[in-house]
Amino acid sequence: MLEDKNQKRTSLSELGEFGLINHLTKHFQINQKSTLKAIGDDAAVLDFSKNKVLISTDLLIEGVHFDLSYMPLKHLGYKAVVANISDICAMNGVPTQITISIAVSNRFPLEALEELFEGFTLAANRYQVDVIGGDTTSSQKGLIISITAIGEAKFEDIVYRNGANETDLLVVSGDLGAAYMGLQVLEREKQVFQVNPNNQPVLDDYTYLIERQLKPEARNDIKELLEKLEIKPTSMIDISDGLSSEILHLCKQSNVGCHLYEEKIPIDPQLINVCEEFNIDSTTIALNGGEDYELLFTIKMTDFEKIKHNPNFTVIGHMVAESEGAHLITRANTQITLKARGWNAIES
Amino acid sequence: MLEDKNQKRTSLSELGEFGLINHLTKHFQINQKSTLKAIGDDAAVLDFSKNKVLISTDLLIEGVHFDLSYMPLKHLGYKAVVANISDICAMNGVPTQITISIAVSNRFPLEALEELFEGFTLAANRYQVDVIGGDTTSSQKGLIISITAIGEAKFEDIVYRNGANETDLLVVSGDLGAAYMGLQVLEREKQVFQVNPNNQPVLDDYTYLIERQLKPEARNDIKELLEKLEIKPTSMIDISDGLSSEILHLCKQSNVGCHLYEEKIPIDPQLINVCEEFNIDSTTIALNGGEDYELLFTIKMTDFEKIKHNPNFTVIGHMVAESEGAHLITRANTQITLKARGWNAIES
Repeated sequence: MLEDKNQKRTSLSELGEFGLINHLTKHFQINQKSTLKAIGDDAAVLDFSKNKVLISTDLLIEGVHFDLSYMPLKHLGYKAVVANISDICAMNGVPTQITISIAVSNRFPLEALEELFEGFTLAANRYQVDVIGGDTTSSQKGLIISITAIGEAKFEDIVYRNGANETDLLVVSGDLGAAYMGLQVLEREKQVFQVNPNNQPVLDDYTYLIERQLKPEARNDIKELLEKLEIKPTSMIDISDGLSSEILHLCKQSNVGCHLYEEKIPIDPQLINVCEEFNIDSTTIALNGGEDYELLFTIKMTDFEKIKHNPNFTVIGHMVAESEGAHLITRANTQITLKARGWNAIES
Repeated sequence: MLEDKNQKRTSLSELGEFGLINHLTKHFQINQKSTLKAIGDDAAVLDFSKNKVLISTDLLIEGVHFDLSYMPLKHLGYKAVVANISDICAMNGVPTQITISIAVSNRFPLEALEELFEGFTLAANRYQVDVIGGDTTSSQKGLIISITAIGEAKFEDIVYRNGANETDLLVVSGDLGAAYMGLQVLEREKQVFQVNPNNQPVLDDYTYLIERQLKPEARNDIKELLEKLEIKPTSMIDISDGLSSEILHLCKQSNVGCHLYEEKIPIDPQLINVCEEFNIDSTTIALNGGEDYELLFTIKMTDFEKIKHNPNFTVIGHMVAESEGAHLITRANTQITLKARGWNAIES
């Protein structure tokens, strides 16, 4: 859980609730003009002038959403913020503020929370979002993180999930599947470690995958990239649960079907190598992996020329009539019905 | 946990994540003009026109903040919403939206969550706030609720904690201490029940106290009441942790001291009777009880005539120079230094 097992362990009860909150939040900076009042009153006060306000929230539970045996707390903090900011980016908005609430059991010393908050602070600085509130309390078991992300957008810039039309092109940023395979590599190393704690993992062949799992980034650059290309997506979503699942969300909410072309799905060469090593089909991973935080969106067919050679984007398919359904067209030119096999948080 | 122990128990896994969310959220109505898009996309979209946006968030953990053995789930849901709305009222704002995230262990059947969401829905309807988002996931232990409340206010209407001046009058709405004594009554009944499960509790003498504990209300009426009186508070906070603790927040952030008069503290007659029965000093309960969700605020001395006979408000003291400190002036005319003994969520 802690990077250095010998470091100091300060009990949280030594500081008291308000002492703890002051200690943990003192490094948060205010960068956004829209933040009139951040932490320290009954509520934060924000001013978005004529812009619309975007709100998204996530709840992360130790043992359900993360495993501290291979997820360093600093990375967890960073990733928790990124995952929420990604939802604002998926509306074609600009993330501006977050609230962060945590509950911790008393197995966590102050130094562990400092690491976690270092991750929060790194992400807040990287994405220039202000931490404007939160709650710090105790849990009966493990670590719980609840983040609400706030963003802004001009009304005419907002992109919903429900605007895709037949013949629109389906486009994705970056590459897919790497975060999931990074997790598989880390889980394998955990098992090796449990058998032989003196084994030193050699992870050089997996650096990209592990980074995608432990330190993902939200695509807050896409809004500007698309504006420069003079493209406004017709629908958009971020890929948190896996490509298949997200495509089906766009299809369902837009009342369209989809043809997704296997050969077009962008996959990093390292993912291909590791999938061979693990004897897993890389398309399956890209379809169902999740946690890539890339943006998936549709554009008008007439925008194809603007985007076709852009290294940030890959056209992976096109929308069709709803009655045709949503299918993967394989390299062998067979049609397979897309299913949402993405990670499902509710399991019995 | 459930009001009827014989009722149907449907496993959450039967519905799947999206089925569960759809089932639980279908009764939420949209009432606010400012809600452009609620549940169903990556983020909600809100339009506050020229008003400022207020945001507050809380995290509630079973076994830390609530005990399901005497807190019915419907009441818990209602109270969780009220506690957050109260923070928006404490800024002199109008609560408009909330997000609700829950994590539950698989000991909870669907019917339990339905009760909880019935409470959420009742409160949302009562306060006309729109549920615009959230997260539903599994926990390793118990029930976790995270709520973010959103509100709006004109810039010139917002009241912070830091605006109190020397000689300002200290005013409180409603009466204090009842919620805490309601909890004591319920805890006593729980112990009686554990000794003899066939014992039927007689709670007629405690109805007001128990209602204040199980079904508190946020004072969203105070903003309008004060506007009609042509009073704008100089500072304001809601009483969630106890009067002492909240007075000290106002004093610290406003750089003033305070004289609080014991004889002025508004206490319900039922509280006095029950305090005698429990052999507890009712002033101590009013000072440290918490969870009353009344509003505590300061007004200019010149506004005294406007408020002095108003049944909704009680002037309980006045602010003094910071160097004089914050004191309770007892009925015997002795000065006792105010201390924040309010409930502290971080305990080892």
